[in-house]
Amino acid sequence: MGKAGFGKLMSLSEAKELALSNAPELGTESVPVSEAMGRVLAGPVSIGIDVPHFAKAAMDGFAVRAQDTFGASETSPLRLRLVGHVTPGVILERAVGPGECIEISTGAPMPRGADATLMVENTETQGEEILVYKTIAPGQNFIKAGSDIAAGSSLFGAGEELRPRHLGVLVAAGLREVEVRRAARVVLMSTGDEILSPGEPLAPGKIYNINSTTLGESLRAFGCHVRDLGVVRDESGAVKEAISSALEDADIVMLSGGSSLGRGDFVPEIMAELGTLLFHGIAVKPGKPTALALAGSKLILGMPGYPTSALSNYYIIVEPILEKMSGRKVRKNYTSARMKRKVLSTVGRYQFLPVKLEEGAAVPVMRGSSSITTLAIADGFVEIEENVEVVEKGATVSVRLF
Amino acid sequence: MGKAGFGKLMSLSEAKELALSNAPELGTESVPVSEAMGRVLAGPVSIGIDVPHFAKAAMDGFAVRAQDTFGASETSPLRLRLVGHVTPGVILERAVGPGECIEISTGAPMPRGADATLMVENTETQGEEILVYKTIAPGQNFIKAGSDIAAGSSLFGAGEELRPRHLGVLVAAGLREVEVRRAARVVLMSTGDEILSPGEPLAPGKIYNINSTTLGESLRAFGCHVRDLGVVRDESGAVKEAISSALEDADIVMLSGGSSLGRGDFVPEIMAELGTLLFHGIAVKPGKPTALALAGSKLILGMPGYPTSALSNYYIIVEPILEKMSGRKVRKNYTSARMKRKVLSTVGRYQFLPVKLEEGAAVPVMRGSSSITTLAIADGFVEIEENVEVVEKGATVSVRLF
Repeated sequence: MGKAGFGKLMSLSEAKELALSNAPELGTESVPVSEAMGRVLAGPVSIGIDVPHFAKAAMDGFAVRAQDTFGASETSPLRLRLVGHVTPGVILERAVGPGECIEISTGAPMPRGADATLMVENTETQGEEILVYKTIAPGQNFIKAGSDIAAGSSLFGAGEELRPRHLGVLVAAGLREVEVRRAARVVLMSTGDEILSPGEPLAPGKIYNINSTTLGESLRAFGCHVRDLGVVRDESGAVKEAISSALEDADIVMLSGGSSLGRGDFVPEIMAELGTLLFHGIAVKPGKPTALALAGSKLILGMPGYPTSALSNYYIIVEPILEKMSGRKVRKNYTSARMKRKVLSTVGRYQFLPVKLEEGAAVPVMRGSSSITTLAIADGFVEIEENVEVVEKGATVSVRLF
Repeated sequence: MGKAGFGKLMSLSEAKELALSNAPELGTESVPVSEAMGRVLAGPVSIGIDVPHFAKAAMDGFAVRAQDTFGASETSPLRLRLVGHVTPGVILERAVGPGECIEISTGAPMPRGADATLMVENTETQGEEILVYKTIAPGQNFIKAGSDIAAGSSLFGAGEELRPRHLGVLVAAGLREVEVRRAARVVLMSTGDEILSPGEPLAPGKIYNINSTTLGESLRAFGCHVRDLGVVRDESGAVKEAISSALEDADIVMLSGGSSLGRGDFVPEIMAELGTLLFHGIAVKPGKPTALALAGSKLILGMPGYPTSALSNYYIIVEPILEKMSGRKVRKNYTSARMKRKVLSTVGRYQFLPVKLEEGAAVPVMRGSSSITTLAIADGFVEIEENVEVVEKGATVSVRLF
């Protein structure tokens, strides 16, 4: 058939290093706090106001001048005049003068003059007076303005992923917008005349486009903006045109199919025409027919057509690239397990081995890279490094959970 | 001030048990596969077609009748007539007859008559003939129809959370819709005249509504449909009206603020009027002023107003309720650490202790439940069970990571 082979395959570590050193770090943008969940901070956040913004009571009771309680005890109570009450959200004109107190609820602004809150349990109300049964110190049950966050301070740092507890702080500080790393824009397309879009009527010899779903949903879950062009006609001109046009507004153009060596597998050639081909063919199993090119500051990724290979390469190649570009680290969950049976591997080739966990044992479930069920029935995968020839039955392995 | 206290507080375990035994399991609904990411399967999925739908080649090479290769070897090749070629997506009329072969690409439908694919490496093409250098068996490099999934089989099971690898299978099987558990509809509201909506201009004595963000984003991240009513006027009639109206289309009505015992804390009374009050006041620190009522099959949850308490109770009370209702289990990440300093707790009271991880040590960072920064600077929390009085410095604790 007269085709050139892949030639010498690149090792996974070399391919990743090349990908990571060429992948651009995305810039930043300002987004409303209400849309910032899951986004990655561009840098520390400057807080412009005191939080809380005013001194307030930490307890229900009476706002007092602490010195007016000095000497009070269960056996010799002191008397204070009750001159008002204050609830949350209300600012009193009236100050607390010598010998006076003001009834206060938790969270209400401390009236001027008061420097402590006497708990209701330590008092007894008698008409317009209260009896004070306890001596308290200045500052007691008194939350100072700025005690949680002082105006002018900065919080968090670059790379922090914004979760509900961070967003709460931004809201408390009155921020409306926050500077975050830009999300990667990815354009997806598939090649292959046998490929149908999901939901199209099935025809003989045709198969559904699985990769746009598995890759697309994985990218969205990472936080990327994904535009799916669907199936592009399996013809060199059409594919080149689609990639060129996609490069205009994408950070990554990702193709699936067409990077193997069969008829119509012209994608790597097009990639080399549109940019610099960094690799084509990596020493991994499955997932060998994978290609990466750099076009200006954009990446073109040629992913394998086989669904298991496309998704396994998402984990081992694409995810690290996205982490670099976005500054966001995915939380990876690992568990330790004993290998249920002996597994052979080829020296010089990294193996992605899907496994199911059964009673603490890792059971290999690889059904071939053309099987779409392999990953769906697996609980995670074991990474067999390239210098490993055999993983013995009973050996302890680290399983990355899906 | 003449107020009743909480009376005897309910233990967390009792409160959770009561909540879980009363929380309804939500029903199911059909959603498009393209919108099913993260949803929870209602039950096994029935597959109506064979996957793959047709027999195909696993390799580039020649589709042959295996018997025609019997006896072929490097030293005594056999000859076959090359009568056509087939690529993916194409159905050939022509069958492979005795002594014939058809060139085939990986993934292309096997022509009728052929029962194996001879790899191109084991052949040599000479004009209209090929030389066969290897004997192969029927079924070799031949992917049978239905070998991945047989029509009529069912896959997965109730409670499976749909991830990209599952959605790929649904697409491959030609499914357009999938039956999933319904997502919980939650209506959020906050009470308190001192509360401003995020982004409103700050006024003296006022604070921003933090809980609608922290609770709302946590609920959304779980997969709930959240409708946020914002701040409801701190008046019994207005709050009762808002809850009644929200109950019409919510599974859970969640209030924050107003369940403590200060002035205007009438929420538990209203909850008791609209349903059965299951508890009010739980023996946890922070988060004591928490109330739950059952109104028909709906829940009314009164959460503390303090932001740390509201969010800590999300983890210890609300999340288990959502898990029960939705059938979805949250992946909880734990790490083991040594406690950096001695921590005292009260017997009979569960303590939620936020900690920061520093060089393998868990450093308590609790700044009081009114502090909004406490959880934001923490990496996770330690749960101090109610029967524990002291956690010694250096003790090994399990930290649930945020």
